[in-house]
Amino acid sequence: MSKVIASASMSLDGYIAKDDNSIGRLFDWLQNGDVEIPTASPGITLHLGQASAEYWRRWTSDLGALVCGRTLFDFTDGWGGRHTMDVPVVVVTHSVPTEWVDAHPDAPFSFVTDGVGSAVARAREIAGDRVVAVTAGTIARQCLELGLLDEVAVDLVPVVMGRGRPFFGELAQDDVPLGDPVTCVQGDRVTHLVFPVAR
Amino acid sequence: MSKVIASASMSLDGYIAKDDNSIGRLFDWLQNGDVEIPTASPGITLHLGQASAEYWRRWTSDLGALVCGRTLFDFTDGWGGRHTMDVPVVVVTHSVPTEWVDAHPDAPFSFVTDGVGSAVARAREIAGDRVVAVTAGTIARQCLELGLLDEVAVDLVPVVMGRGRPFFGELAQDDVPLGDPVTCVQGDRVTHLVFPVAR
Repeated sequence: MSKVIASASMSLDGYIAKDDNSIGRLFDWLQNGDVEIPTASPGITLHLGQASAEYWRRWTSDLGALVCGRTLFDFTDGWGGRHTMDVPVVVVTHSVPTEWVDAHPDAPFSFVTDGVGSAVARAREIAGDRVVAVTAGTIARQCLELGLLDEVAVDLVPVVMGRGRPFFGELAQDDVPLGDPVTCVQGDRVTHLVFPVAR
Repeated sequence: MSKVIASASMSLDGYIAKDDNSIGRLFDWLQNGDVEIPTASPGITLHLGQASAEYWRRWTSDLGALVCGRTLFDFTDGWGGRHTMDVPVVVVTHSVPTEWVDAHPDAPFSFVTDGVGSAVARAREIAGDRVVAVTAGTIARQCLELGLLDEVAVDLVPVVMGRGRPFFGELAQDDVPLGDPVTCVQGDRVTHLVFPVAR
């Protein structure tokens, strides 16, 4: 069965973006190396260091589907109908954006209006044996609280941001213990850490 | 010249304690191993895993002085006059606790009333070539903002706390970039990471 993994670049103090959704230094590691990685988005080519490139290739080659929220979908305009990592996307939303759907009839996007649990189930069907990635923020928090996450993959960036949008945010429950990292890869301006979640 | 290092156990989401100052699972790694480490506090013996024990011994053997705030000093009642790590303590405070000082005439505690910068300078004098540790929270944030830190040493604990007291908290300035970790030691329920600070 597919794994469900919450993943994001995160500052040492736990932020995945500034309050205005800009990313400051969080994505520096995606452009500071010699290894060119093309993406499915026109005009976006990554330039990773060797260690991060290996980590990235493994991560993206395992990906089967992505679950995101409506805010990110709207912010990116649905990545123009094709996600940067060329993976099917399940969007958690209150209402289906019918105009967008009509304008992108072939886009591998699904819209789920009955909650995160249902969206993850849909993404699992799409992903088969491959990984379901869920975006950090509200979606990751809800998945963590519902016990839906298998792993938390943090690209830990050596910066103190002081404030911003947290990876998980305030939980409705007590502490959630994770396991010790099963992966720890040191890149250039990033440490890739993967923590298992007890389910 | 001595290094100034901010150090604490921290959850993956950036907290060093709960809002009520309790520590949840943050100190589990100090008691889950086979290596007995005595401390200067009566009744407190640590039990560390092998990797953490080696890290801890190096850390404590390098320590020359500790800078903390008045809140922690009061919370611990000045560790009874002798810090757990048997190191001189410089307390940043608005007023000297004269009763406590009279009751502990031989305690290696100094009280500095003119700010963190002055407290760090005093701690440097005491520490000589050895490390000055500053506690996480307000003191660490002020040191970071004043450019006084050489390193940030995080004992990263695999737990999501959701809320609590942050390692640094909100900065009065923009992002502060750190260097990639110069130390990464995997323990049991902890990853010891040391980040240099550009000064």
